[in-house]
Amino acid sequence: MTDRSPLAPAAFPSLPAIAGVTLRTARAGYKAWERCDLTYVELDAGTAIAGVTTQSKCPSPEVEWCRDAIPLGSARALVVNAGNANAFTGHRGRAAVEAIAAKVANHLSCLPSDVFVSSTGVIGVPLPIDKAEAGLEAAFAATPCDWEAAATTIGTTDTYPKGASVSAMICGVRVELLGIIKGSGMIAPDMATMLGYIFTDAAIDPALLQQMLSAANKRTFSCITVDSDTSTSDTVLAFATGKAGNAPLTSMDDDGADAFHAALRDLCRQLAHLVVRDGEGATKFVEITVEGAESDESAHRIGLSIANSPLVKTAIAGEDANWGRVVAAIGKAGEPADRDKLSIRFGATQVATGGLAVEGYDEAPVAAHLKGQDIVIGVDLGLGEGRATIWTCDLTHGYISINADYRS
Amino acid sequence: MTDRSPLAPAAFPSLPAIAGVTLRTARAGYKAWERCDLTYVELDAGTAIAGVTTQSKCPSPEVEWCRDAIPLGSARALVVNAGNANAFTGHRGRAAVEAIAAKVANHLSCLPSDVFVSSTGVIGVPLPIDKAEAGLEAAFAATPCDWEAAATTIGTTDTYPKGASVSAMICGVRVELLGIIKGSGMIAPDMATMLGYIFTDAAIDPALLQQMLSAANKRTFSCITVDSDTSTSDTVLAFATGKAGNAPLTSMDDDGADAFHAALRDLCRQLAHLVVRDGEGATKFVEITVEGAESDESAHRIGLSIANSPLVKTAIAGEDANWGRVVAAIGKAGEPADRDKLSIRFGATQVATGGLAVEGYDEAPVAAHLKGQDIVIGVDLGLGEGRATIWTCDLTHGYISINADYRS
Repeated sequence: MTDRSPLAPAAFPSLPAIAGVTLRTARAGYKAWERCDLTYVELDAGTAIAGVTTQSKCPSPEVEWCRDAIPLGSARALVVNAGNANAFTGHRGRAAVEAIAAKVANHLSCLPSDVFVSSTGVIGVPLPIDKAEAGLEAAFAATPCDWEAAATTIGTTDTYPKGASVSAMICGVRVELLGIIKGSGMIAPDMATMLGYIFTDAAIDPALLQQMLSAANKRTFSCITVDSDTSTSDTVLAFATGKAGNAPLTSMDDDGADAFHAALRDLCRQLAHLVVRDGEGATKFVEITVEGAESDESAHRIGLSIANSPLVKTAIAGEDANWGRVVAAIGKAGEPADRDKLSIRFGATQVATGGLAVEGYDEAPVAAHLKGQDIVIGVDLGLGEGRATIWTCDLTHGYISINADYRS
Repeated sequence: MTDRSPLAPAAFPSLPAIAGVTLRTARAGYKAWERCDLTYVELDAGTAIAGVTTQSKCPSPEVEWCRDAIPLGSARALVVNAGNANAFTGHRGRAAVEAIAAKVANHLSCLPSDVFVSSTGVIGVPLPIDKAEAGLEAAFAATPCDWEAAATTIGTTDTYPKGASVSAMICGVRVELLGIIKGSGMIAPDMATMLGYIFTDAAIDPALLQQMLSAANKRTFSCITVDSDTSTSDTVLAFATGKAGNAPLTSMDDDGADAFHAALRDLCRQLAHLVVRDGEGATKFVEITVEGAESDESAHRIGLSIANSPLVKTAIAGEDANWGRVVAAIGKAGEPADRDKLSIRFGATQVATGGLAVEGYDEAPVAAHLKGQDIVIGVDLGLGEGRATIWTCDLTHGYISINADYRS
């Protein structure tokens, strides 16, 4: 890993064990590096699965495999390969995924469709089946490891391992939810695709888990962007072992379902923020809140237009309260907007309202806010009730260095 | 002007006079700089006008003024202010445009709607009416100047003045078409909005000129991007003085209409390329050709997705044949694409076909191509007949320096 992001948390958090989940790592040697690069997670029988995957029209075979297996609802294992995305590799890439699933299924005496596979790294090079199989053999024999080791092993260009946990009460029974994630751009196709894995000991029906994960994804992972580049491999999977002993959740109307749903969304938001905080070259974490849009979807698109604007991102890097660039980003979003009803604030200070600059606004608190690491931009369109919050980072020389100097 | 772009042409071209067009410049002093910043163009009575303007939902009052006046079809003058975009300035910005049009209309004894106004520069500061009026007085009294002086005066962060000319034969009569343009990003809202002005001595009906300009715009100006940021002020106006003596063109079926249309499109393409070649921080000029899409519109959107991808642009800056990033950019475009039918080439070398890398392709010509200044990326989707060509530049440390270090 390179220099730790200045936005990284102080340390990896202390995470609880999840009953029914066993972690192991091994060295498959997908790249010429001295580190573990294969993560193998065993899940007890009865584990429910849900998942969301990239919207890319050119997905990896791992994504296609997971898309087919998720609706079946059950999981026994997860394999994550780091250093090779296995994307755009034709039938050879597909064969590698099938070989991994078959080998694990044989080891656990389960169905291949109970085995979930992800890969992250360079595009266009088929994952070497021999290395994957030898790596799995080593992992089967390895001593179980902790969450920090697994979170480190799934990383590629990440500058720190990422994990978080929350808990919820379901009818008096405490359940744990925990996640690890990798990603250092939302989403660079080479070495920084976003892969996230959530584990809980709660008992929950897979269809309900899917419904909750899809909803949480819409408000969390779908609301972050580092560089507007969607990956071929993005995947978030949630596994529920059911070991906590709660009365199984089967519907949103069940007691405790709301609490679990809120905890899951909170966990997803924490994980999503960890990815933005490791954005390539990032020096500022930026929250963009859009209110007063014609709909939530419209607010979301306007927020992304601001968050993806290279001119807004470079202005923030330069600690410049350049609200004109925010206006331009709103204008280009293609969504309903009325120039003369727009208001914009940086931090707590209104800088523009009613279509023009607030005359003589106090620049001192704005300048002080922009010198900090956590930047807030608020936009009120003055049209309706639609709202959204988007998280991103600034665009710096560090991003160019990482991506122009990287050789595929 | 800062250091001349490495992609700039060797010199400003030799451009012919256009009968019925008189150029003058003056110092309005919109910024604290020692240079002319007001361009005043007088057009003889009978000049036809056509125009296209930004798609931004937050346009400048100049754009709104031009949109209202273009359909009336006639023009007597053009005023271009550099250093202040007058955008997002409410009723005071509108008043400045009206004052300029009124003053010129009084000077020329014409209608205010015959006066076209553009402004470029910082957003959010109303254009000072006193400076504009004093600048106009100075311009009225100034000695006429040449095209290079006018092309220089409309510029802001441009690193070189931009102009081009072509000619066409209409039923044996030679007509000249000539353009000047400014822009150094497609399109930065502060100091690099794109403003283009085309002048011809051809006699042509304004409705037909509009039809041809709109069509040419779709294939030229709409096909360039530096940083995906659309400006509040983008404007291209075409003026036809009718002094060449050709039989006036009134319909696409007229003899010579095809020749004029082709010449206009060629001129627009040349001007568009000049803007890309002055892209902020650019060191490579990139042509992206997309073929085999389901439609031309789909090809256009896929081309822009590739051209706007920060990861593709930084890979080109790094002279890296990273076709995986091209695949990812195609995948995220949201347009029909079949991973397993895709082909990609750099220069003349096919690097990926049928959904995977061309095994053992010769890397030497690819590396040599990427070391050059003119980069060609070809994509064949293998789905249909749709095609488009997009032009862009690479993304370098220079872009970050220009935009993160600029203070509004």
